[in-house]
Amino acid sequence: MDEFTLIQYIQDKQKLHQINLNNKNIPITIGDDAAAVMPPDNHEIIITSDTLISGVHFFKDSNPKDIGHKVLAVNLSDLAAMGATPAWFTLNLTLPEINKAWVTKFCDGLFSLAKKNNITLVGGDTTKSLENSISITITAIGYAPKNKAITRSKANPGDGIYLSGEVGLAGYLIEQIYNNKNLDNKLKQEYIKLINNPMPQNQLGINLRDIASSCIDISDGLCADLYHILNLSNVSANLYMDKFKIPKMLNKLTQDQALEHILYGGDDYQLCFTAPKNVSQKLVNNKTINNQIFKIGEVIASKSEKNSELFLIKNKNKIKLKNIGYQHFSNN
Amino acid sequence: MDEFTLIQYIQDKQKLHQINLNNKNIPITIGDDAAAVMPPDNHEIIITSDTLISGVHFFKDSNPKDIGHKVLAVNLSDLAAMGATPAWFTLNLTLPEINKAWVTKFCDGLFSLAKKNNITLVGGDTTKSLENSISITITAIGYAPKNKAITRSKANPGDGIYLSGEVGLAGYLIEQIYNNKNLDNKLKQEYIKLINNPMPQNQLGINLRDIASSCIDISDGLCADLYHILNLSNVSANLYMDKFKIPKMLNKLTQDQALEHILYGGDDYQLCFTAPKNVSQKLVNNKTINNQIFKIGEVIASKSEKNSELFLIKNKNKIKLKNIGYQHFSNN
Repeated sequence: MDEFTLIQYIQDKQKLHQINLNNKNIPITIGDDAAAVMPPDNHEIIITSDTLISGVHFFKDSNPKDIGHKVLAVNLSDLAAMGATPAWFTLNLTLPEINKAWVTKFCDGLFSLAKKNNITLVGGDTTKSLENSISITITAIGYAPKNKAITRSKANPGDGIYLSGEVGLAGYLIEQIYNNKNLDNKLKQEYIKLINNPMPQNQLGINLRDIASSCIDISDGLCADLYHILNLSNVSANLYMDKFKIPKMLNKLTQDQALEHILYGGDDYQLCFTAPKNVSQKLVNNKTINNQIFKIGEVIASKSEKNSELFLIKNKNKIKLKNIGYQHFSNN
Repeated sequence: MDEFTLIQYIQDKQKLHQINLNNKNIPITIGDDAAAVMPPDNHEIIITSDTLISGVHFFKDSNPKDIGHKVLAVNLSDLAAMGATPAWFTLNLTLPEINKAWVTKFCDGLFSLAKKNNITLVGGDTTKSLENSISITITAIGYAPKNKAITRSKANPGDGIYLSGEVGLAGYLIEQIYNNKNLDNKLKQEYIKLINNPMPQNQLGINLRDIASSCIDISDGLCADLYHILNLSNVSANLYMDKFKIPKMLNKLTQDQALEHILYGGDDYQLCFTAPKNVSQKLVNNKTINNQIFKIGEVIASKSEKNSELFLIKNKNKIKLKNIGYQHFSNN
């Protein structure tokens, strides 16, 4: 299979998933120097791009279907955090060789999620890697009504802090895979599957456009990501230990061990957002928005400007939480 | 330097190049989950994305400044071929380690060209490669008035075929580097510099919006790329040997050797376009459009549908040209 056959093959797979390719908002698609797409009037274009590399962002023995899901999911999750409607994406696929079975499964995961979120592949490229690694970049593009995109910088003292679902599980599973020497191989494969299949919260993101004062997706860990909101909004926050939901698989851990994963584990791709007090109860009660939402804390004023602090209230103690999370290039 | 410091460093470099970051068409830029940009009313968004890998698309000992130039140039060239106005881009940088000197030079090349073409970095990511290679993906986004983007599919019999400048040099230089065992190292470095510094034809692309019937940029080679236009437009074409301009450095070759590079050498990033007969002479005479443009042939009707042919008229002989060019994953 050469490069052009591969590109055609990927396009055919997209058609098989009944993704609308001749949509009037895509006047020019794959096969020209670039694609042309037409956003609705008076909307901003929302752009995000993430690269996933084998051995860094996914385990080399991951099912290609799950890799296809994950690389789109992490990009969709960024659109969700902005409250954007997903629309188009480009795929840059760097492979050591073309393995048709691999590509078929990859496309299956990719386009199943694309179909679910109504996002269409419109371009990209394929390149041959000289080394043995797989590198995949997706740039996802969506839109939101002018001035309606949700940022990280508008949280206000008094706002409630919410999560769209439980966090901490992915970090725990990653730790098990790396550190548990006795981990059964079948269990390891189950864990990898769970880690590779986060479900981005795009419908919730859209629903939050007129509700949330700020929003971020949990990729580096709750503390690290929430600190981004606090720093950019010049505010601080209290989280309440008794409000956290502990993922079922973490029940066998001590409370402190579970807490470590909830606060500092990444890769969950839930949304963390803030919303004014007057909409708080309405939000939790509104099942059409999301029946998984729960409140974990409140935004408070910072003691001094440019000094955001995040506290955990636990058994009446107030503990300052560290601003740490996963970083590339760090020596940890 | 960790990941966040690197991202901040790249942003600072962009500021140094006086690229307008607080433009009203960029309401949200780097530092949030995604960027938000505002295209002008009634315009299509034009999207293209290319990955460049060390050892494949650029020589490992290339000057990082030239790598920064080239990775943006090849993407700008695709926007040029569509007649799009460049506007925003994302950068996904995968490096084995952060070398500050390398990043500084890379940014210098990248943002010098970005400034020249009024295109702003609005997002992307940085990842650590487990292997020794550098991989860079840019997604470039521009816009064009609705229905004004130039495609590959609307060339008509009778149209003239034009080049925006000489082609063939890059292919010759690449061949010299790979095959000429006696090539002096200083000369080799000069050749690499030339190959890495193509100048995308964005102003010409914009000027051609109401003139060209089709357009493509020469990345894989004149024949391979022109065949894309012919196949998608269901037409054939004659090229005239005596109309070709031979790059000065190819003068020492025989006519046939030079011709081989002109027809099949890639990496020149000139535009090849077609335009109706009635605008042809006007086009060549119009110095404000481009004083390097020259005509190389004419579009003709195909003998049968779905069977595009490209001929070279040389000393009254008519030679059918092969549809070959550079391909990833091929076994050549």
